[in-house]
Amino acid sequence: MAVGLKAPDNLLAVKGVRLAATHCGIKKDASAKDIVLLELAEGSSVAAIFTKNRFCAAPVTICRRHMAQQATRYLLINSGNANAGTGQQGEAAALSCCQAIADIAGVDTEQVLPFSTGVIGEQLPIQKLQQAIPQLYSALDAKNWLPAAEGIMTTDTLPKAFSRAVEINGEVVTISGMSKGSGMIQPNMATMLAYITTDAEIAADELQYLLEFVADQSFNAISVDGDTSTNDSCVLVATAGSGVMVDRRNTPFVEALRAVFQHLAQAVIRDGEGATKFVEIQVTGAASDSDARQVAFTVANSPLVKTALFASDPNWGRILMAVGRAPAENMQIEKTDLFIGDVCLIRQGMPDADYTEEAGQAVFSQAEITIRVDMNLGDCAATVWTSDLSYEYVKINAEYRS
Amino acid sequence: MAVGLKAPDNLLAVKGVRLAATHCGIKKDASAKDIVLLELAEGSSVAAIFTKNRFCAAPVTICRRHMAQQATRYLLINSGNANAGTGQQGEAAALSCCQAIADIAGVDTEQVLPFSTGVIGEQLPIQKLQQAIPQLYSALDAKNWLPAAEGIMTTDTLPKAFSRAVEINGEVVTISGMSKGSGMIQPNMATMLAYITTDAEIAADELQYLLEFVADQSFNAISVDGDTSTNDSCVLVATAGSGVMVDRRNTPFVEALRAVFQHLAQAVIRDGEGATKFVEIQVTGAASDSDARQVAFTVANSPLVKTALFASDPNWGRILMAVGRAPAENMQIEKTDLFIGDVCLIRQGMPDADYTEEAGQAVFSQAEITIRVDMNLGDCAATVWTSDLSYEYVKINAEYRS
Repeated sequence: MAVGLKAPDNLLAVKGVRLAATHCGIKKDASAKDIVLLELAEGSSVAAIFTKNRFCAAPVTICRRHMAQQATRYLLINSGNANAGTGQQGEAAALSCCQAIADIAGVDTEQVLPFSTGVIGEQLPIQKLQQAIPQLYSALDAKNWLPAAEGIMTTDTLPKAFSRAVEINGEVVTISGMSKGSGMIQPNMATMLAYITTDAEIAADELQYLLEFVADQSFNAISVDGDTSTNDSCVLVATAGSGVMVDRRNTPFVEALRAVFQHLAQAVIRDGEGATKFVEIQVTGAASDSDARQVAFTVANSPLVKTALFASDPNWGRILMAVGRAPAENMQIEKTDLFIGDVCLIRQGMPDADYTEEAGQAVFSQAEITIRVDMNLGDCAATVWTSDLSYEYVKINAEYRS
Repeated sequence: MAVGLKAPDNLLAVKGVRLAATHCGIKKDASAKDIVLLELAEGSSVAAIFTKNRFCAAPVTICRRHMAQQATRYLLINSGNANAGTGQQGEAAALSCCQAIADIAGVDTEQVLPFSTGVIGEQLPIQKLQQAIPQLYSALDAKNWLPAAEGIMTTDTLPKAFSRAVEINGEVVTISGMSKGSGMIQPNMATMLAYITTDAEIAADELQYLLEFVADQSFNAISVDGDTSTNDSCVLVATAGSGVMVDRRNTPFVEALRAVFQHLAQAVIRDGEGATKFVEIQVTGAASDSDARQVAFTVANSPLVKTALFASDPNWGRILMAVGRAPAENMQIEKTDLFIGDVCLIRQGMPDADYTEEAGQAVFSQAEITIRVDMNLGDCAATVWTSDLSYEYVKINAEYRS
């Protein structure tokens, strides 16, 4: 059950983007959409970041190659099968699906990017995908954000999509995007697919900069379990359909873009596998950005912190343990403060005299919890979002293929 | 339920070591021993390694200080309360318990080392400990290895102790030790306490070298959950009671010592919280020892690998994912081989053509599983032992304080 997350509404069409989703037969449930197509208007800029896992999946290899060769016009996504660990046969399968789109749309194969998410190590059932493509192509429509968001789900319990409109020089610029989780989530990236589009006009280099800038404050700042998938991909598209040109100096646009990215990234955590808590970890006063991130992620990924959060048990000793074992270069225990919500647990390395179990319990009983570590050494900070570790996480991951 | 582990038997007395254990009232169950005393003969050499967690517990601070000041004669251990996150009051509590032993035994307070394991962040009930000390002291006996091993347990389901006798120059040298786990287990060290004693005569510097040498192949090569406790301590004592002097060049002794350390370390994993599998991860062909350890521990700590192991599901794609995300400096996917048991999954980065789901299932259905990664880049290797991630792990850690 997702924490503080509802099915998306008020999704806005983006000029130059059409979408479609249908069931091709990868997922067992015949009503579950498992293939999605995005069409991008000619002249769109496309930026992407991919998993840093060295065993990257076949579609990631193809995406990188195609993006280097031609301008992207179509994104083809299937859910239920990751096409990872599938060798050359897997690459051929991904390519043949791109080819099928290219044939029907009258573009080159290199103008189609393939994405897959689901079980690793099984060959993609390409005939099922190919048979669904004519129907998928004919269903393309700018309004289809919700069915598209449903079509990329795996163990997600809710579709994740979000829109923001921002007025720039009297014109409306729209940003709409969708994401899916929901396990194997750790920065750089996650079993995470995310597609964010805008009708702003943005040069390709600038778009890549903006993608990396906001991803560091969103998709690269979340963790469910510390694992990094073979398939993670995040794509940012600027279609230029609004006729409004923007770059990194346009603060209202960057803020709106960040809001969409953060909503979609946090939605992945809120709907993390088995999540019953949504936890924000703020580290301040660090000597370096790297130290701040190390401390934040060590707390976020500690199984013992996560099980205490699940139990709503203010066993804050475990947070202290996790902070203490973080591989930060600079840490001075005697300067470190630790808070949950507004409640101080540790002040300058010592248990706070005013702390009471009741106060801690009141914070830990909430579904949304903030843990704050002030290292009191410098001006660097990091914020990371994570979830708890529940029976349900184990159940979902133990029974995933059955 | 521990995997392939029975209650210890055939424990051997070590000349110069006497032990006692009783119930002082920290644990709720009145039949559960929670305080343990070891007496070491005068002239014993004592070596120790402690947690690298910067928030180390009060007793660890006291141990380090006392060892630097005087020769150790007594080890006092309580279970059920970690005396961690307890500030100066916690240090005073640990000291006062040392003092109580010193008074009754006629030694200096600095000759007593305190150890605690259990819940973090609660003050030690020193009166309970002090009241039990006279009875504890009077019960000291060389035969008490089993009750002592029981007395240091927390969520352990079985006591862990092991002995080895080895003949050196016609004389028998004995090694006996005990350990406890069983969550927050990651090298350097774990919520792990381990006490290993021998009646060999070993110089202090040589003893510290031997401790670090065998710990790297045992206690520093295990992981349940990647967390590192505030209290981990491993103590090696040489009483000289046998009159046989040894050093690192005595291969039969070093082999026997390693056997005791590895048995005790593996016992911690076999009895890991909620463990249903005992898993050995072997990495070979690495370019460096560090790379080998990084890959082995990344696989060992992956929640997705661990839940697949729990489910006996040969979802080997998750192992591949974990290898691929390991922060090894040198890795070439196209050279990497991956085996479970004798079954090849990946050969030179590609799915092995002969792999069958049946063969994978046969391996994963076993309670003891070997995962082997050959990086085919060099001569370095690492072996790590771990367990799976089960419902029971979550249950134990969610309900630990209730």
